[in-house]
Amino acid sequence: MSILIKQVAWNGTTVDVHISGSQIKKIGDCSGQTAEVVLDGRNKALLPTFHNAHTHAAMAYMRSYADDLELFTWLNDHVWPLESKIIEEDVYNGARLACLEMIKSGTTFFNDMYWFWHGTARAVEETGLRAALSAVFIDFDDHAKAKEQVEQNKRLFEERTHYSNRIIFQLGPHAIYTVSEKSLRWCTEFAAEHGLMIHIHLSETGKEVTDCIAKHGLRPAEYLDSIGFLGPNVAAAHCIWLEKSEMELLAKRGAKALHCPSSNMKLASGKFRFTDAVSAGMQVAIGTDGSASNNCLDMGSEIKMAALLEKHFTGNTTALNAQTAWHAGTRACAEFYSLDSGRIAEGALADCMLVDLNNERLVPGHNLVADMVYSADSSCIDTVICDGKILMQNRHVPGEEEIIAKGRAFKEKFRR
Amino acid sequence: MSILIKQVAWNGTTVDVHISGSQIKKIGDCSGQTAEVVLDGRNKALLPTFHNAHTHAAMAYMRSYADDLELFTWLNDHVWPLESKIIEEDVYNGARLACLEMIKSGTTFFNDMYWFWHGTARAVEETGLRAALSAVFIDFDDHAKAKEQVEQNKRLFEERTHYSNRIIFQLGPHAIYTVSEKSLRWCTEFAAEHGLMIHIHLSETGKEVTDCIAKHGLRPAEYLDSIGFLGPNVAAAHCIWLEKSEMELLAKRGAKALHCPSSNMKLASGKFRFTDAVSAGMQVAIGTDGSASNNCLDMGSEIKMAALLEKHFTGNTTALNAQTAWHAGTRACAEFYSLDSGRIAEGALADCMLVDLNNERLVPGHNLVADMVYSADSSCIDTVICDGKILMQNRHVPGEEEIIAKGRAFKEKFRR
Repeated sequence: MSILIKQVAWNGTTVDVHISGSQIKKIGDCSGQTAEVVLDGRNKALLPTFHNAHTHAAMAYMRSYADDLELFTWLNDHVWPLESKIIEEDVYNGARLACLEMIKSGTTFFNDMYWFWHGTARAVEETGLRAALSAVFIDFDDHAKAKEQVEQNKRLFEERTHYSNRIIFQLGPHAIYTVSEKSLRWCTEFAAEHGLMIHIHLSETGKEVTDCIAKHGLRPAEYLDSIGFLGPNVAAAHCIWLEKSEMELLAKRGAKALHCPSSNMKLASGKFRFTDAVSAGMQVAIGTDGSASNNCLDMGSEIKMAALLEKHFTGNTTALNAQTAWHAGTRACAEFYSLDSGRIAEGALADCMLVDLNNERLVPGHNLVADMVYSADSSCIDTVICDGKILMQNRHVPGEEEIIAKGRAFKEKFRR
Repeated sequence: MSILIKQVAWNGTTVDVHISGSQIKKIGDCSGQTAEVVLDGRNKALLPTFHNAHTHAAMAYMRSYADDLELFTWLNDHVWPLESKIIEEDVYNGARLACLEMIKSGTTFFNDMYWFWHGTARAVEETGLRAALSAVFIDFDDHAKAKEQVEQNKRLFEERTHYSNRIIFQLGPHAIYTVSEKSLRWCTEFAAEHGLMIHIHLSETGKEVTDCIAKHGLRPAEYLDSIGFLGPNVAAAHCIWLEKSEMELLAKRGAKALHCPSSNMKLASGKFRFTDAVSAGMQVAIGTDGSASNNCLDMGSEIKMAALLEKHFTGNTTALNAQTAWHAGTRACAEFYSLDSGRIAEGALADCMLVDLNNERLVPGHNLVADMVYSADSSCIDTVICDGKILMQNRHVPGEEEIIAKGRAFKEKFRR
């Protein structure tokens, strides 16, 4: 497919943009150029799409199922009983609903961890997004379970080739308190052998830290380092209860932090110290977490949440400024996963969006990045392109009606 | 005008709704009923609209003009110089842009304070919203200025009758540090005489408290009470640095708190203690503040911000639940201003909206209120009705193109 976007605002100027295959081929004057699809870029701006650094996409089926509850009640009486009932088809339909929501809100990449890996992979494949997918690896120190998980991940690693290169297979050891040391060591080895990323939850609650110290005499990041786990291929979600020394350790090893402010606030988990982490040398990307604890997958609202929470928390109005929030919601996670997306440049992947400069939330238009971070919502996003293909135009995603119908059926299936 | 909404979801059931004049006349079976406009309510839900408890609407012209700056630099080098250049026509066009944004995001009432009262009043009148409008009353202890402000407010009080009853005139003494005691006393008297509300900023910064103690030997709420200012007609924005005793004092007098979480976070002003204020007996409504410090006027995102910030701040996942946030963003401020809006009932004002239950963010649909608070954005809102008139249908507001064009012109006028 080839796309020609004519007279679109980009980087303070007006340009034509030519997309062919999966790449942006030219930015500038394309007057002689033809393409299969020509988009009118007037009164629109071209921007990179959002990259959602941490989510459990399929949990869209659980949106607003249980809220405002004490953590243990929430998990024990609501989330886990519901999760025990799902089958791969539910994950597929939940993930499709999530993909639809992400497309509609300008996200083309997400970093995921969930059950029934193929369910999510099929959803990504069909909806046209890009994703790094991990199966939840939990063994609870049980040898048989560990063996089963290792076998499953080996199998999924082979089966990854059934999908296009928009899908990145990675390992997903859930957390230090749900995965044995032996399995964590296996993840490190298998990842090193095959050049894989590892997606893990780290230091999300105070209890995780206390328990880790009691069990290992070390704080979570120290423990992971002691078993050789930490490296540039580790993407760690939450990172709330890190000491400065742990941030420095993670930075030294090149491990990445995935910051989920809305989920952390909603679950009263605590606060990831963005400014301190960056000072310590950590790279940070922003994610929404799953719909059970957000309850949306909207990266636009998430980067605003991150910027405002950081200013509130530090008492410093200059902390986590719009440009930094924008980077953490777009380019940062692309870099983690070695993708040339999250930026608009010749040769980069054609993962981009057109925003409507006539949308009231982008008017008067003094500063587009500040508008995108602090004012825009999904209604500003007109067109979304991923891998050189148009996924949404005029805010319509082909096939969305069927995805919604399947999504609404969850209400009946999981009626209390 | 009369409107018949057929087969709409409301309160867990499906009903017809008949609107005539400015009121909801019937909810139930309206099969024999005719109306000038018939709306298909299928796959839609009827909800009360948002009521924005504190804003400076016209400041939409300043959206994303200056962000992420130290407070004094922001005010001194950016906000105030720009404000010194505006004329009534700018306020009119800025407020129209704000009204458009509010309609698009489901708000039909806002509580305002700004310069050029008539500019905002004209915008409200024309766009069809409802608003309580105050002129900024500042005298800096200057006798001549105070006299001028008093005269202006007396004049505006008379001129309020030039507008429909959708516009409520109120007094707007800016804050205790910008208005003399004498003028504050005048506001109290004039308001009592004419049954007016008073809109003021209270305890927004730590400096306000320190200065008040130094000058009066009292904390801000105590000082206001000592001069007889506090009463059920006082709506106080921010209320961040209140001691428990001040909350109890405000509650005892019936004064209301207007909570603006996004602005407070963005300006690192501190945190209004919602739970404590409610425990102390205060009534609280949520507002966006102006576009200079938010940067949008979206009550949907504001109630989510309030709910999440409260859970984060208190460490309690059950704090400020969805139902409370929804009430604080809809009905609460209507009650403050003695409006029978912010609820759906026979006889109530027809200020309501239709949300699209097929929007991906409201699917599966386990809990509509939780979805509205935690997941929805403006794209879910299809139709907005205020005072029995349709202001938006299929997300289109008649005349919006001209408002946008005028709004975009601000970028040129205020180019740096």
